[in-house]
Amino acid sequence: MFKKVLIANRGEIACRIIRACHAMNIRAVAIYSEADANALHVQLADEAFLVGPSAVSQSYLQGAKIVEIAKSCNADAVHPGYGLLSENADFAELCQRAGLVFIGPKPAAIARMGSKVQARQVAIAAGVPVVPGSQGAVQDEEQAVQLASEMGYPVMLKASAGGGGIGMVVAHNEADLRSSFASSSKRVLSYFGDGTMYLEKFIERPRHVEIQVLADEHGNAIHLGERECSIQRRHQKIVEESPSTAVTPELREQMGRAALALVRELQYTGVGTVEFLLDTSGKFYFLEMNTRLQVEHPVTEEVMGVDLVQWQLRVAMGQALDAEVMERRQTGHAIECRICAEDPERFFPSPGTITELQLPEGPSVRNEIGVRQGDAITPYYDPMFAKLITYGKDREEARQAMLVALRQYHVAGIKTNLPLLQRVLENEAFAAGDTHTSFLHEQFGL
Amino acid sequence: MFKKVLIANRGEIACRIIRACHAMNIRAVAIYSEADANALHVQLADEAFLVGPSAVSQSYLQGAKIVEIAKSCNADAVHPGYGLLSENADFAELCQRAGLVFIGPKPAAIARMGSKVQARQVAIAAGVPVVPGSQGAVQDEEQAVQLASEMGYPVMLKASAGGGGIGMVVAHNEADLRSSFASSSKRVLSYFGDGTMYLEKFIERPRHVEIQVLADEHGNAIHLGERECSIQRRHQKIVEESPSTAVTPELREQMGRAALALVRELQYTGVGTVEFLLDTSGKFYFLEMNTRLQVEHPVTEEVMGVDLVQWQLRVAMGQALDAEVMERRQTGHAIECRICAEDPERFFPSPGTITELQLPEGPSVRNEIGVRQGDAITPYYDPMFAKLITYGKDREEARQAMLVALRQYHVAGIKTNLPLLQRVLENEAFAAGDTHTSFLHEQFGL
Repeated sequence: MFKKVLIANRGEIACRIIRACHAMNIRAVAIYSEADANALHVQLADEAFLVGPSAVSQSYLQGAKIVEIAKSCNADAVHPGYGLLSENADFAELCQRAGLVFIGPKPAAIARMGSKVQARQVAIAAGVPVVPGSQGAVQDEEQAVQLASEMGYPVMLKASAGGGGIGMVVAHNEADLRSSFASSSKRVLSYFGDGTMYLEKFIERPRHVEIQVLADEHGNAIHLGERECSIQRRHQKIVEESPSTAVTPELREQMGRAALALVRELQYTGVGTVEFLLDTSGKFYFLEMNTRLQVEHPVTEEVMGVDLVQWQLRVAMGQALDAEVMERRQTGHAIECRICAEDPERFFPSPGTITELQLPEGPSVRNEIGVRQGDAITPYYDPMFAKLITYGKDREEARQAMLVALRQYHVAGIKTNLPLLQRVLENEAFAAGDTHTSFLHEQFGL
Repeated sequence: MFKKVLIANRGEIACRIIRACHAMNIRAVAIYSEADANALHVQLADEAFLVGPSAVSQSYLQGAKIVEIAKSCNADAVHPGYGLLSENADFAELCQRAGLVFIGPKPAAIARMGSKVQARQVAIAAGVPVVPGSQGAVQDEEQAVQLASEMGYPVMLKASAGGGGIGMVVAHNEADLRSSFASSSKRVLSYFGDGTMYLEKFIERPRHVEIQVLADEHGNAIHLGERECSIQRRHQKIVEESPSTAVTPELREQMGRAALALVRELQYTGVGTVEFLLDTSGKFYFLEMNTRLQVEHPVTEEVMGVDLVQWQLRVAMGQALDAEVMERRQTGHAIECRICAEDPERFFPSPGTITELQLPEGPSVRNEIGVRQGDAITPYYDPMFAKLITYGKDREEARQAMLVALRQYHVAGIKTNLPLLQRVLENEAFAAGDTHTSFLHEQFGL
């Protein structure tokens, strides 16, 4: 049993982990930067140590310093949270070498999933579908046409050297592809000095659907259903939910099986998330695996009735999954909104002091928050300072509860994205469950 | 469908009801006294009207004034909350006569349950067990002995005229009773000028266990399991939970059947609570029926996954219970603590301004609260300003979550009963589920 766990993180997720430790009678140690000296996570923890100046590079990313603190206060383990050092295989190894349990998978699993190329290879080896592509440069127009006919239209031509969408072309049929190939590679050549192109299947209006997995060190592994996180702005998720309106029980079973194949291939332990793109026909493609706790884990907790952080701790202590958790089935529906300190129109961060803070409370509402009234939001860290989760027996009930809660969420002194969240939740296409990764662009031009 | 509901209450329950209205797209109208002009329930409501000066007798108990406000703002219905006018049959009738729906049972059912004597008669008529007693004065020692042998020892002698425990004696056998009878009636005579005694079965170490019922206007009625509310100080509940550690599935079925017999006898509609004493042998006795929403309703909501306030509104609109709610079964365990502004040692109310307020948040935590940081607790109203509810898959998980939440509950500027609540939740007998109505007295001398 752990007696003491150091939390190598800050903000709402540090508070969340401290609460889980306390519920299991484990002492929680916080670390903090100079800017966070009076932060809520410091107040909630049993002990707290300064790790460095305000910039993350000098504080929360100082792996060696963090390990030193953990050793000096006799912590048994380190919980990395999400972001920061959570997917840093070197840090995991550093912990292990110091005799600390790193609460997460083995460093090798982290490393293999950390590289896009390796992750795709592991997925293919595990029989998990990936987005079909040319697996390298396309020699010429004829090869492009042949590959495209194999993977099926629409396809996307991309520049190997490139980025920023330069030379990127979607072709819906052979004529399209032939007419684009020469002109596109010419543009790419003139832009990057290298005209090499590659081909990928183009997934139209995909949903981002991810599977939560949980595995112990005794060979037991389960999936805990899916989350849909299609509401994204520039690849940043802002609204997540479980279940997905697009996932049938059969599809859930298929995606769960695929995720667990990856878990076995990696000898994965702890919690993790396998992200997929889901196309409109119900086909899904591996995107990446996050080898850590996810920001949006609460929606799974609500519909599964499982505390994922407590399970992380148990698995890290060597405990096996029990029958109770292995037989859990999802009920109801949960939605999460990420509350960020940002200008809702221009999306700039909006640091400042929270002069008034009044959270929605009551039935069906869960708050995860890292700040109090009077606290300052500094420019050093992620602008997300809270998450709001609602639960209902079905999606409409959860959505109505979220609308009520958003209206009652009161923050003064800083700007927040609450108006945008409200627009999303009120939106007709969202209400109808018609979501995809271009939703914000299509509906609001964002 | 209701378009607008007036809430004839204040504090946390007014906020709770406003949230339920909003989740159902019903406009919520608040009333407020002068002291409550800036209260949270006024802020959350869509409209708010001053009802009178600060004293409840001049404001929240002014039924005619409240009906006038409801009519003038075109409300469809009035929700009385709990306490105040919620069990006032005259007020319910006043609403009806004004063409307003009173959200509660018919006035006749309220009136019949409002009288201890009538309520006992209704229970007997419905075949619901009541505490055996002499049903009136005991003539002499011989009659007392005969009645006692019929109802079984221990029995309690009580003064008809009396109160305050004067002359009250518990007899464990015939010798006890004979030796007490004469002396006790003499003392009662000298104290009250009337020596009339009556006899009641004495229930040892009883638990307070109550059954939640829900009935519609179409003849459908269900019970939603029990709550145990044995942790009381001077008959004021302070910790409640569901399920009770003393209630087996068979006993739940029996108690539920008894509660529903009463519902039928009364042609009861809406939500209501039938309170019982449960003795150590598993026998239960009708205490009273509360013909309204109960303070502790959230623990039932948590284990049943049902929103009782929304169901009150639906039933009042004439909707029938649906299959979904009728087939619900309880899962997990929920505990509620009542947070009061009071000196934790002397139990005096502690009015003042809440200079700091920091609620526990996170998984498994539900807050019901009627105040914000900066608000004043005035001496005019009930000192309970918030409720804290935790949920777990079993009792121990809910208890641990409550301990964590209580430790994180931070209130400055007023004194609260948080230290007492913490002592209860930490107590070994409480942890073992060994609770009864004298628990606080036995464990802490309170």
